[in-house]
Amino acid sequence: MSKILIFGHQSPDTDAITSAITFSHLQNALGKETEAVALGKTTAETQYALDQFGVEAPRIITTAAEETQEVMLVDHNEAQQSVPDIDKVKVLAVVDHHRIANFQTANPLLYRAEPVGCTNTIILKMYKENNVGIPKHIAGLMLSAIISDTLLLKSPTCTEEDEKAAKELAEIAGVELEAYGKELLKAGTDTSSKNADMILNDDAKNFPMGGLTVRIGQVNVVDVDEILDRKQELLDEMAAQSENNDIDLFVLVTTDVLNSNSVAIVYGKEKAQVAQAFNKELIDDTLMLEGVVSRKKQVVPPLTAQFG
Amino acid sequence: MSKILIFGHQSPDTDAITSAITFSHLQNALGKETEAVALGKTTAETQYALDQFGVEAPRIITTAAEETQEVMLVDHNEAQQSVPDIDKVKVLAVVDHHRIANFQTANPLLYRAEPVGCTNTIILKMYKENNVGIPKHIAGLMLSAIISDTLLLKSPTCTEEDEKAAKELAEIAGVELEAYGKELLKAGTDTSSKNADMILNDDAKNFPMGGLTVRIGQVNVVDVDEILDRKQELLDEMAAQSENNDIDLFVLVTTDVLNSNSVAIVYGKEKAQVAQAFNKELIDDTLMLEGVVSRKKQVVPPLTAQFG
Repeated sequence: MSKILIFGHQSPDTDAITSAITFSHLQNALGKETEAVALGKTTAETQYALDQFGVEAPRIITTAAEETQEVMLVDHNEAQQSVPDIDKVKVLAVVDHHRIANFQTANPLLYRAEPVGCTNTIILKMYKENNVGIPKHIAGLMLSAIISDTLLLKSPTCTEEDEKAAKELAEIAGVELEAYGKELLKAGTDTSSKNADMILNDDAKNFPMGGLTVRIGQVNVVDVDEILDRKQELLDEMAAQSENNDIDLFVLVTTDVLNSNSVAIVYGKEKAQVAQAFNKELIDDTLMLEGVVSRKKQVVPPLTAQFG
Repeated sequence: MSKILIFGHQSPDTDAITSAITFSHLQNALGKETEAVALGKTTAETQYALDQFGVEAPRIITTAAEETQEVMLVDHNEAQQSVPDIDKVKVLAVVDHHRIANFQTANPLLYRAEPVGCTNTIILKMYKENNVGIPKHIAGLMLSAIISDTLLLKSPTCTEEDEKAAKELAEIAGVELEAYGKELLKAGTDTSSKNADMILNDDAKNFPMGGLTVRIGQVNVVDVDEILDRKQELLDEMAAQSENNDIDLFVLVTTDVLNSNSVAIVYGKEKAQVAQAFNKELIDDTLMLEGVVSRKKQVVPPLTAQFG
């Protein structure tokens, strides 16, 4: 019998990688034979967390069906975010904190979703419900995921449960929450080695809004000037990509992860309307967004209202 | 703000009705304002359970969106088994023990599914996880659902968790599990007031098998002669319905709920193959199926293999 594979979504972030590891540890403690794997390379932030707690990065798979018949999904459920041959294997379990869509099974399964900020907050509850002890390195990885998903508890996606979990896990992991959190977030923000295309698109999504295609990228930094100093290079790349890919409006949200503010760089004919959506003035194609850190909760809704 | 409505599937059985009541009680204890409702009339079995523990049958709704914006689903998730206007309301939570299909949300939600025999087995765990006490009448309804879904712990769908839950709940409810279970199952088996169409179709599903349409109905009794005495009437009705509805093979499984055996009455050109599927002889269009109680786990698979 081959091992059950456990993995998070494509283009994995810290929660996707670590929840595979922490959920696999739980399942193995409960008697299953599982292995945590990944659908892509770890980011610098995730690698920092793994190094801190002495854990190897999971091996990367491009197919599941060639080595197993059974899988468990963490931090995602939608087929297009999963392994390409997800339809050829049996999904035994899902732990997730996203909407449910494009997901279907032939058989009953374990499905555990809660509307919290981080998958690991749910996994922590499952350790407790099953009376499984949490080793220091597992606590450290869970904590890192919560810090990453909630930008150190400051994102509007953060719930009371995430906050409580983070405090409890910091104690088990033996780290000071605020200090470790800042170091972890910093580790994921080095943009100096990235070209304009990577900065714009490493974390970008298209949104249809009132007939327009609006592309919104987000990049985390500890110093917004890293990005603002490269504004002209970024605007030129936005112009080229908008032309080539039928994008009507391109917005890059640069988020200061330590101070929880953002600056947007905007390209496109309707750029003035982006400023209007936030009741602001556009100055040299940039827009200050005080207190904004969440694309999903703080950027998309005002733009949808403006263009909708 | 209108109340959150909680309901089970259409053509509700005991688990669908009672899990709405027991989950609503839990949610209200946790501070939500919810009401348990139903998508159809209670069966005689369910009414027996409600009467035993002094609980009113939930009111029946035919629309959700006209009175609320938010709902919770129990014992189902597929849209076609739910309220007709399910797409017009927001699903806040699902507790279920079936496969997931035709289900999708715009937002993160609470989704709790486990591959156990009864939804109330999962709800019992949620009471404990949230430290909410279980009153006697709630325990009685949960117990009734487990007995109903597992045919007094004898169905192959019954898990260790269901069995443990039933024993614990019988104690809280103050009833003797075996004696109460038999009375409950008996209460749902009165076929004397049903015509042939009701006996055939009250719990029947079509299965496509190797180019044929196979319709399999199931009826629970305490004395199989109740049904066998009406064999000719039932075969005549099967013939008429097969002709009218393009059914190639009609199988009625009559299950003795106290002794956990079944007898099948078979109509259709390929009826001999049904006997073959079970390595048996067909005698006067009937077939003894010793130890068979579950259509899903014990009847459909051998037929699928035969006609596959």
